[in-house]
Amino acid sequence: MELKDAIQQKIDNLNKPKGSLGRLEELAMQICMIQQTLMPKLTHPCHLLLGADHGIEREGVSVSPREVTWQQMINFTHGGGGCNMFCRQHGFDMRIVDVGVDYDLSQVPGIINKKIARGTRDFLYVPAMTETQYDEALRIGAELVDDCVKDGCNVLCIGEMGIGNTSPSSIWMHLYGNIPLEECIGAGSGLDTPGIRHKYEVLLKAVENYKTVVPYPTVSSPLIYFGGFEMITAIGAMLRAAERHLVILIDGFIMTACALGAVQLNADVKKYMVFTHCGDESGHKRMLELLDARPLLNLGLRLGEGTGALCAYPLIDSAVRMMNEMNNFDDAKITKYF
Amino acid sequence: MELKDAIQQKIDNLNKPKGSLGRLEELAMQICMIQQTLMPKLTHPCHLLLGADHGIEREGVSVSPREVTWQQMINFTHGGGGCNMFCRQHGFDMRIVDVGVDYDLSQVPGIINKKIARGTRDFLYVPAMTETQYDEALRIGAELVDDCVKDGCNVLCIGEMGIGNTSPSSIWMHLYGNIPLEECIGAGSGLDTPGIRHKYEVLLKAVENYKTVVPYPTVSSPLIYFGGFEMITAIGAMLRAAERHLVILIDGFIMTACALGAVQLNADVKKYMVFTHCGDESGHKRMLELLDARPLLNLGLRLGEGTGALCAYPLIDSAVRMMNEMNNFDDAKITKYF
Repeated sequence: MELKDAIQQKIDNLNKPKGSLGRLEELAMQICMIQQTLMPKLTHPCHLLLGADHGIEREGVSVSPREVTWQQMINFTHGGGGCNMFCRQHGFDMRIVDVGVDYDLSQVPGIINKKIARGTRDFLYVPAMTETQYDEALRIGAELVDDCVKDGCNVLCIGEMGIGNTSPSSIWMHLYGNIPLEECIGAGSGLDTPGIRHKYEVLLKAVENYKTVVPYPTVSSPLIYFGGFEMITAIGAMLRAAERHLVILIDGFIMTACALGAVQLNADVKKYMVFTHCGDESGHKRMLELLDARPLLNLGLRLGEGTGALCAYPLIDSAVRMMNEMNNFDDAKITKYF
Repeated sequence: MELKDAIQQKIDNLNKPKGSLGRLEELAMQICMIQQTLMPKLTHPCHLLLGADHGIEREGVSVSPREVTWQQMINFTHGGGGCNMFCRQHGFDMRIVDVGVDYDLSQVPGIINKKIARGTRDFLYVPAMTETQYDEALRIGAELVDDCVKDGCNVLCIGEMGIGNTSPSSIWMHLYGNIPLEECIGAGSGLDTPGIRHKYEVLLKAVENYKTVVPYPTVSSPLIYFGGFEMITAIGAMLRAAERHLVILIDGFIMTACALGAVQLNADVKKYMVFTHCGDESGHKRMLELLDARPLLNLGLRLGEGTGALCAYPLIDSAVRMMNEMNNFDDAKITKYF
């Protein structure tokens, strides 16, 4: 019997009406297939919190000023951020990594220094990063995952801190998804209607420039031209996590954009991804549809930092427990009712 | 300043874009108001698993046979049920209570014996219970809650095990909600279309009889005439839990029907209820709308036993942690961005 059939048979024989644990049963199937086992385990969950700044922030596309990135990075080291409390709650090993914050954080205890540059360049005028920087970000992402795996991790969450990063996310969605740019743009951390209009105009101009500068784009062109260092690092982490057979928890709008990017580079990566929630950022639902993904939670979260993915973790754990702890009709001596 | 305003002010000052923790912020407000504090706590969570049989099961309205009730009750004492694993996962003190199972469980270790009778009578012909039994069930529910509170509990989950109990739930929804009976009836643990049709015909006849026998119904008439002992006990527990200012986690279709019943008896109870999920049972969504309730999860669960509510517990915990562990803009030295 194929493993997949054996897993399904096991799920169907647990003492419950068939299918009655709904999405948890689908999750269990996915995790069993990732781990190639009937008895999945979750070990040493890690949360990579990647921080970087964006040149495009200079164009007034975000309501939050750039310094919030470094301030929050420091705040995370003190344990008072949204991601911190959820990491504590669910036993995640949190790793705060500076891959491109526009501030010297090298002396701050608790921040892993992998800075590529002090922020990307402003993609309204020039590509956000060089190909070398892009390769470096991918490599850093892979190394971070290798370090997690070395410590026993088989389930990975990725979060971001980077003022301005809804802008590249919207553009990736537009370019990879063939969705009108206007429908890809939302309020970010709190823009009003004129603010969103301004953001649209800036991003439209940037995309026009891109099309002139890069007349023959490759699959990675939008990543290099518009990406943030934290976003490319996240993509690198996703690619390596899939290679190493980790369960990957995908968070909100920005991380879903990174998932979309990762899937362009390697479609197989999707099998390892659990789409954890549909955030409030306009366009997130549509981007999830692009990926044919049904999110687990829909709680109107839009904080980023990986908070939505962390909140969904207990459901992943529940699915795994179902496979290991719930007895079947024979064990339980229960009349199998269908 | 009113407490409510003080809570909102505290939530708005946490270091995150305003409203960015979505439903968790609303949950935090509700729990703070229940506990009348800015620093809520969850202590000694308890899960009441109430089991009883239903006379109406004799009419073939359920795909599962009656003996599954007692078999599962025993299985729960061995720890292999769906509710068991989620209780272990989230640290719930589970109390398995026989309030009317049609089997002698009095010698089974781990089952609290509060048996009112060996199942209700068949409401196709006669009222399911007497008024005395109804009062007894309400009292038992209240006492069970008092016992939990004595042990330090301030958050209560209630689950049920009772083959046939979607039938009274559908009828309550029909009678209290003024919704056509047909739209209140679903597949239960797995009926097919002819099975659902049969269930509809049985319940329609039962409601017709009821209207003849009880020409001047009071608010409790449908509860007495159609209810199960586990359901009335649940209502008793909800009423007392509200009196004692507990957070009450409301599970799926059957527990939502009990919540609907409890709210008929005392509308104030609703303030204490957290509606945890929308199950797969047809009609659940509509019943939640009747209660003006937006469920936290929507995962296609339809196992009962309180499993959906238990799965949602970490979100309640997250909301509480937000109030206690997340720092504000001043603490975090972060530029308040709006």
